[in-house]
Amino acid sequence: MNSDEQEIRKLVATWMEATKRGDIQAVLNLMTEDVVFLTPGQPPMVGKAAFEGAANAQAMSGDARPQFEGASEIQEIKVFEDWAYMWTRLRVVITHADGGAPIIRAGHTLSILRKQAGKWALARDANMLAPAQSQGD
Amino acid sequence: MNSDEQEIRKLVATWMEATKRGDIQAVLNLMTEDVVFLTPGQPPMVGKAAFEGAANAQAMSGDARPQFEGASEIQEIKVFEDWAYMWTRLRVVITHADGGAPIIRAGHTLSILRKQAGKWALARDANMLAPAQSQGD
Repeated sequence: MNSDEQEIRKLVATWMEATKRGDIQAVLNLMTEDVVFLTPGQPPMVGKAAFEGAANAQAMSGDARPQFEGASEIQEIKVFEDWAYMWTRLRVVITHADGGAPIIRAGHTLSILRKQAGKWALARDANMLAPAQSQGD
Repeated sequence: MNSDEQEIRKLVATWMEATKRGDIQAVLNLMTEDVVFLTPGQPPMVGKAAFEGAANAQAMSGDARPQFEGASEIQEIKVFEDWAYMWTRLRVVITHADGGAPIIRAGHTLSILRKQAGKWALARDANMLAPAQSQGD
């Protein structure tokens, strides 16, 4: 495994940890300014500022921050000098403080990463997670 | 617009036309052997042979081929020598011969393309289309 691939794997691990502890700034540090998040049934979220706005709105809503558990299995990373793509299998469990049933979502992501000033960052993200019930989904 | 980008745009147009007329072989010619199709709620479809098998199974089911209309708006193409990524906004209308209501699906795709022997082909495809009702979706 080359060092670019190792750095991208570390980015994924850092992203999951930062999301788990609600560290919005740490997550923002892992994306490009022009990042685009694509999900089914939603308009694209374009730009780091849009991500930050949505995250801050949730943080300021007064609701207790939901508990987040995520498991990412990287299926493929391919690096082309300063660009890369990555395919992951992802499973997240979100538990709200109100005691409702945990929300489980599972599926795949396809992402484009960019190396800027020697540092890898997420540039485009296609998130195909869907509701899942059992551990096997 | 450089010639690589023009060729990728032509690939998209050819794909849509070939799908519309049910020309499976023409669509297969536009993908790499190791192509991966990712969609929400489904396991990955890995390899050209898997695509061909699914297409042939549908063709041999005895059901009349559904009518397909698709409109693709390319949002972004970025080329890195022999690789590229593409983000499109896509809307498809599928009408079955049994006269039921057309199925409309709309959303975004993120794809990885590869240039092999001078010819661009689809290598990885993230399809985030979701059911849509109105023209505005």
